[in-house]
Amino acid sequence: MLVVMRHGATTAEIDRVVRTIQEMGYHAAPMPGAQRTAVGLVGNDGRVDSSRIEALPGVAQVIHVTQPYKQVSREWRPENTIVTIAPGVTVGGPEVAIFAGPCSVESEEQILTAARAVRAAGATALRGGAFKPRSSPYAFQGLGRRGLELLALAREETGLPIVTEAMDEEGAHLVAEYADCIQIGARNMQNYSLLKAVGRIDKPVLLKRGLAATIGDLLLSAEYILAEGNGRVILCERGVRTFDPASRNMFDLTAVPVVHELSHLPIIADPSHGTGNRERVTPMARASLAAGADGVIIEVHPNPDRALSDGAQSLFPDQFTELVVELREIARAIGRTVAAPPPRPADGRVDAASGPARGSSSGPAPIAVG
Amino acid sequence: MLVVMRHGATTAEIDRVVRTIQEMGYHAAPMPGAQRTAVGLVGNDGRVDSSRIEALPGVAQVIHVTQPYKQVSREWRPENTIVTIAPGVTVGGPEVAIFAGPCSVESEEQILTAARAVRAAGATALRGGAFKPRSSPYAFQGLGRRGLELLALAREETGLPIVTEAMDEEGAHLVAEYADCIQIGARNMQNYSLLKAVGRIDKPVLLKRGLAATIGDLLLSAEYILAEGNGRVILCERGVRTFDPASRNMFDLTAVPVVHELSHLPIIADPSHGTGNRERVTPMARASLAAGADGVIIEVHPNPDRALSDGAQSLFPDQFTELVVELREIARAIGRTVAAPPPRPADGRVDAASGPARGSSSGPAPIAVG
Amino acid sequence: MLVVMRHGATTAEIDRVVRTIQEMGYHAAPMPGAQRTAVGLVGNDGRVDSSRIEALPGVAQVIHVTQPYKQVSREWRPENTIVTIAPGVTVGGPEVAIFAGPCSVESEEQILTAARAVRAAGATALRGGAFKPRSSPYAFQGLGRRGLELLALAREETGLPIVTEAMDEEGAHLVAEYADCIQIGARNMQNYSLLKAVGRIDKPVLLKRGLAATIGDLLLSAEYILAEGNGRVILCERGVRTFDPASRNMFDLTAVPVVHELSHLPIIADPSHGTGNRERVTPMARASLAAGADGVIIEVHPNPDRALSDGAQSLFPDQFTELVVELREIARAIGRTVAAPPPRPADGRVDAASGPARGSSSGPAPIAVG
Amino acid sequence: MLVVMRHGATTAEIDRVVRTIQEMGYHAAPMPGAQRTAVGLVGNDGRVDSSRIEALPGVAQVIHVTQPYKQVSREWRPENTIVTIAPGVTVGGPEVAIFAGPCSVESEEQILTAARAVRAAGATALRGGAFKPRSSPYAFQGLGRRGLELLALAREETGLPIVTEAMDEEGAHLVAEYADCIQIGARNMQNYSLLKAVGRIDKPVLLKRGLAATIGDLLLSAEYILAEGNGRVILCERGVRTFDPASRNMFDLTAVPVVHELSHLPIIADPSHGTGNRERVTPMARASLAAGADGVIIEVHPNPDRALSDGAQSLFPDQFTELVVELREIARAIGRTVAAPPPRPADGRVDAASGPARGSSSGPAPIAVG
Repeated sequence: MLVVMRHGATTAEIDRVVRTIQEMGYHAAPMPGAQRTAVGLVGNDGRVDSSRIEALPGVAQVIHVTQPYKQVSREWRPENTIVTIAPGVTVGGPEVAIFAGPCSVESEEQILTAARAVRAAGATALRGGAFKPRSSPYAFQGLGRRGLELLALAREETGLPIVTEAMDEEGAHLVAEYADCIQIGARNMQNYSLLKAVGRIDKPVLLKRGLAATIGDLLLSAEYILAEGNGRVILCERGVRTFDPASRNMFDLTAVPVVHELSHLPIIADPSHGTGNRERVTPMARASLAAGADGVIIEVHPNPDRALSDGAQSLFPDQFTELVVELREIARAIGRTVAAPPPRPADGRVDAASGPARGSSSGPAPIAVG
Repeated sequence: MLVVMRHGATTAEIDRVVRTIQEMGYHAAPMPGAQRTAVGLVGNDGRVDSSRIEALPGVAQVIHVTQPYKQVSREWRPENTIVTIAPGVTVGGPEVAIFAGPCSVESEEQILTAARAVRAAGATALRGGAFKPRSSPYAFQGLGRRGLELLALAREETGLPIVTEAMDEEGAHLVAEYADCIQIGARNMQNYSLLKAVGRIDKPVLLKRGLAATIGDLLLSAEYILAEGNGRVILCERGVRTFDPASRNMFDLTAVPVVHELSHLPIIADPSHGTGNRERVTPMARASLAAGADGVIIEVHPNPDRALSDGAQSLFPDQFTELVVELREIARAIGRTVAAPPPRPADGRVDAASGPARGSSSGPAPIAVG
Repeated sequence: MLVVMRHGATTAEIDRVVRTIQEMGYHAAPMPGAQRTAVGLVGNDGRVDSSRIEALPGVAQVIHVTQPYKQVSREWRPENTIVTIAPGVTVGGPEVAIFAGPCSVESEEQILTAARAVRAAGATALRGGAFKPRSSPYAFQGLGRRGLELLALAREETGLPIVTEAMDEEGAHLVAEYADCIQIGARNMQNYSLLKAVGRIDKPVLLKRGLAATIGDLLLSAEYILAEGNGRVILCERGVRTFDPASRNMFDLTAVPVVHELSHLPIIADPSHGTGNRERVTPMARASLAAGADGVIIEVHPNPDRALSDGAQSLFPDQFTELVVELREIARAIGRTVAAPPPRPADGRVDAASGPARGSSSGPAPIAVG
Repeated sequence: MLVVMRHGATTAEIDRVVRTIQEMGYHAAPMPGAQRTAVGLVGNDGRVDSSRIEALPGVAQVIHVTQPYKQVSREWRPENTIVTIAPGVTVGGPEVAIFAGPCSVESEEQILTAARAVRAAGATALRGGAFKPRSSPYAFQGLGRRGLELLALAREETGLPIVTEAMDEEGAHLVAEYADCIQIGARNMQNYSLLKAVGRIDKPVLLKRGLAATIGDLLLSAEYILAEGNGRVILCERGVRTFDPASRNMFDLTAVPVVHELSHLPIIADPSHGTGNRERVTPMARASLAAGADGVIIEVHPNPDRALSDGAQSLFPDQFTELVVELREIARAIGRTVAAPPPRPADGRVDAASGPARGSSSGPAPIAVG
């Protein structure tokens, strides 16, 4: 940490900074310059809380040299983390993952139709919301536990692992019973109680970037999960809020190479929320893979005109089928491949239709329902 | 709601929009224009979920005429809501309120010293965090329940009602036991589980604007609380995130007249978080009242250089004393007054020092000093 | 300047940074830390262009300690600059200035009516656009030279000095012939050719903050003007662009105390553009003075419903009259006063009605037309 | 245009809106709704200036249905515009263009080395700044006319057409003498005097998006150029300013499909400025083509460590060579091709080395080397 003094700071002011640093238990190294003096703080093994020092008299600025996160950083772990969602379904390795499905689970027919369609097209995992954070209290809030049961049913039929959102601690435990990967939505990215809760659950977590979160903030939120002991975190770029109403969000694809520089965690991209508009999903999904994303998550609905939420950004099944073909081409162009869907459960062996899910997906044979 | 068709949209496309609106249970009114046709949706008594329509072929844009919130709107209730925090301590009437205290409760000595100082200077209520949302998991997270006990102790001595933050449903119930007003922090403004929880608790709520929340979003979050039955909501402008690193946040004081136009709820301003820097707090607190804010909330610490959080933006007690004098001048200039502190509990009669708090502050005599 | 090396940077990488700094003519001071090495660059007397160093192998970050601007900084000149627009009309001293008038000059009757009204209410100077930067090429672009002539006519009658915008070098010379203060609009804040041009003209300059300009950028643009020799610069906060559509712009009043910390130049505030809406102008004008602004600039139109531009944010003359009364109260509350309008030219002595203006307003008696 | 009245607006207020619309020469169509009345304005053939109406009593909101731009819109011209920069060098057709070169022209050796290197790697055109807009007046401002002469020399040797920036009207004419395409930089995107000037020059224009410009603003600025008669405009996404310091700018690649929806003009992407960092240029250049950009513009410097500007974001020639190979793969994956460089002038036949350029590049044989 470097404390920059104002031009003309007095010796007494500099001394006070030095003393304060020493009281905090660090070594202070004053460095006189041509224009200003700076005082280095040496000996910290993490981010120092600088707020005590920032407003001392004569201080112009405090500059942090050390990043505030640790376990998520590439300096902590140089090699890429590969997160396994289900046997054969990984994120962060050479294969890129494709998560697809409707915004919300609406009915048994809807989710089964969707699941079949996205599997047929080549998706690796099924997404779908049972608990929906909506900005209006009067909007459809999801089917809740019934939605989770229907997702489990869809998994039984198609073999696709399930990714679905939890909105609070109680919900996280419920989601963990049914799903293969717990999603933390953008609005809850800094809901620290929830982050700590999923940090103590033995399931992979898909952590979406908040609407006004810097990439540093996203990594700090992931650090909350790792700090509780859960290292299976997948980050997700889904657009941030800016001044331009042209799109629902501004899809910040540069987050992909930036996260790959700073962290060992995998990052996928969500062009559905990132753009908010069906016509833009295909080009931006292609761009996501070209930028190096470890996967994409795409909203697909059997009948978008009748969707209870996010219809405008949901692809028709046919569009998704074409998109997967294009994504394979892009993956090939940069030396990666699109993962194949996991094996479909053997016929006749599915008998625990809508019951709570298999054990931890890190275990050896989660779909062994027979 | 108005559905604007693209220039050159076909009759079939227009008909499909009309049919979709009818299927949704509304009346459709096509309006051909010089350049484009628009289709009005008539008969809705709230915000329609337009996502089904937005991506129909030939649709250029969907425009909402009705605001998505209801109970918080001035159209719903024209007269100002006045929220009572404690007997004699109101927000939203002609008197402006001054909430003050340290960022975090750190120790008995610290919070008592702070409480005495801010009361002596003229504060109306005591703020102080027991549960602290921090972007880093390694930063000081607050004293928890012990912090609440110390706040209650400070109230017993000074008579100042207490405002403190809750971060999850469990915490909200705990805070409600001890405090007079439950604060929802900026990072949790769209934590809908938490909003619903405090909507069912009979305590006033101080709802802070999120870092990237529009004023419309802030009102929608308040609507979640009102929709659960709790109408005692105080809004708080505390700065939003923008591109300029010159200040910690961009303090959007225009939110004050905008909220007063759109809603009957009171709004206060937080220049401490809004600016992040002690030297800027005084001018921006003055500006807050001049803009019409119903109160201010100010961080004051007995010894900011030793604060465990937010030291740089905390006022010294002397600075706060001067500030209150200036605020009285500004209030007078615009025809308001600064509220007097509530009565101090009579000497020798306080005997329930750190126990859980008095009953609901909406009741007649919460401090039960007699 | 401080060059922070990555954790694990090699000795060879550190040596290369040291050599590069030395080649650039500075002294390099390596500082090993617990986690990383940093290399200080010592001996620069201004901002070093760090781009050569930023991407050297092993470099994590380059941190600037010295601000990139000089002559505008308070370190360069500790006492406040007071800019004289016309005899008795100053900005930056204890008196606060009120600039008022219509967005555009539309006709002789309109500008004369407006000028009389704002003078009667207490304005210190007359604003009005002859050259209008409009985002659409099809919108009204101003009356051009004829507008300047009408402004000069209004000055002859009312004695109010004139502030009007220039959009290019040729226009700046024309404006300087007629007006007392040249305005550079937000869209041209980084039009460096124009900044250099007005830096060489002997007239005060009102420099408005750009839509996405940081306060640092604003000061750098002012530096362009001072670097050419013109020290009479008044800064103006007029709102920046953010994600919230609730107001036309986000009015960043904290810019006022921040500019006062960093620079000796005066800063005024423009609540008309800052809010975009008549109802919000009054509270935010009051807030501007309470925040310490050296003046305000307000749009007033004799008949806003018929204004050719910015009607929605223009005050009616009656509203402006009331506003000035309130501003006097606020100024008094913080120990300042609102300046009185300059003396009206003596009757019968005005004979150069619409001719080019008096000499430089820095001279002794510019209005002595008789 | 739709005027939405407040809930509870009086008949008199509605009538006044109707009369005002009629006075403006349009037809007014009142539409009573369940909650509010709206008044349609019918008969306009372009964007109406709504500011007169916005603040009439009882008006809640004015909604524009018609876009404010015309000639740039796809409704005006459905088929893609293909801009020819030089014989065989087009932007907007099936081939994607690659513009490359240093940020600034620094010396004859530097620009010739760079030009040879980028041509050898496969660039279609040479970029390089002779006039540099720099935020600090003390930073290197470019070589001016000498820079243009050196660019012309590089063209003579390599055959690559030249793209270079103009900062004011005088500069635009000078640039037009030497270059094949006039660049308007981000800071001048709303310098309307300059836009009008290049609208009257017979050269293609590369118009970069401003730092806080919406896509609508970008199209309106292009409209200024088309309105003056110059239809050869290429748009360029180069990142906008947001809250995240992780990258120099936020590179908004969704602008590519959005512009393709709204306009017939081609759009290229600038990942060098869009990311500000060499390591991120390659993935984001690939993403640009995958998103459908009609070309990319890349900073390449023979020796980035010694560049006078933008060294950190400039590729080494070897990196650029590899990048072009990858771009060819991506183009192929989406059914496009990377254009081949234009023919090199025949040896020994170049005799007008550094003189002003050939005629308008729209003519048949601008390089006239024979």
